[in-house]
Amino acid sequence: MMNVFMTRAIKLAMQNVETGGGPFGAVIVKNEKVVAEGVNRVTVKNDPTAHAEIQAIRAACEKMGTFDLSGCEIYSSCEPCPMCLSAIYWAHISSIYYAASREDAAKAGFDDLFIYNEIKLNPDERSIPHIKLLNPETPFPFEAWIESENKTKY
Amino acid sequence: MMNVFMTRAIKLAMQNVETGGGPFGAVIVKNEKVVAEGVNRVTVKNDPTAHAEIQAIRAACEKMGTFDLSGCEIYSSCEPCPMCLSAIYWAHISSIYYAASREDAAKAGFDDLFIYNEIKLNPDERSIPHIKLLNPETPFPFEAWIESENKTKY
Repeated sequence: MMNVFMTRAIKLAMQNVETGGGPFGAVIVKNEKVVAEGVNRVTVKNDPTAHAEIQAIRAACEKMGTFDLSGCEIYSSCEPCPMCLSAIYWAHISSIYYAASREDAAKAGFDDLFIYNEIKLNPDERSIPHIKLLNPETPFPFEAWIESENKTKY
Repeated sequence: MMNVFMTRAIKLAMQNVETGGGPFGAVIVKNEKVVAEGVNRVTVKNDPTAHAEIQAIRAACEKMGTFDLSGCEIYSSCEPCPMCLSAIYWAHISSIYYAASREDAAKAGFDDLFIYNEIKLNPDERSIPHIKLLNPETPFPFEAWIESENKTKY
């Protein structure tokens, strides 16, 4: 099954390859209307976080003036990587539609399976060393946050 | 144990609370020098991806003109969430130093445990519905990518 939004996400990905970007596109939809689009601009923008879904989330939030995309759907040309999946949760997006799988992405050289595997591990078991530094004398930002009256919860 | 970079990350987090941002700060260091800093601006910028670590990664990459932060360390006032952890892997950061734990963050209302749990599940088991849409007649962006001579791998 295909639909107009997924067709658009895939077309964005195709066009992006033509302009030197990665083969990924995403569209955010609310009430059957496109709110924002994104493509992978990691190498073009020198931004390792500029995946299609992240770009689309930023654009949708900017356009709608909110950090909460509840009620929105995301159409992605590929199954989101763990970074984008987490961003989708933080943004409270309601549904995820995707075409290619993580296995398809891996075959094209975009392997995020190692990140899925790393996230499951305890910090001290991961391939990137995780070092906990703590000084009991340093005041903790969370205490300042809890006491602050000048805050927006999310 | 504490050091000057972690002290700085925590100070950034404290200052950020005072200006209405979230209680998180991060510093990226290369060869014992600060390359870039970031603080949580989710609510201030209406960007759910604007966590301290992501902001610091973006700033460091922009400053250094690269999407590859190999050889850099990140000092974060708190254990990175799955989004930021994944971004750290994509950016090829070499070491992660953190102060507060995910449990400390949860106590302050920033609970990312549910995202860690969701990522472990298969797409069709997650709380956000994942719907796979595929049309075998649609050309695949990955094929265009593999055939493209105009690409930068990463």
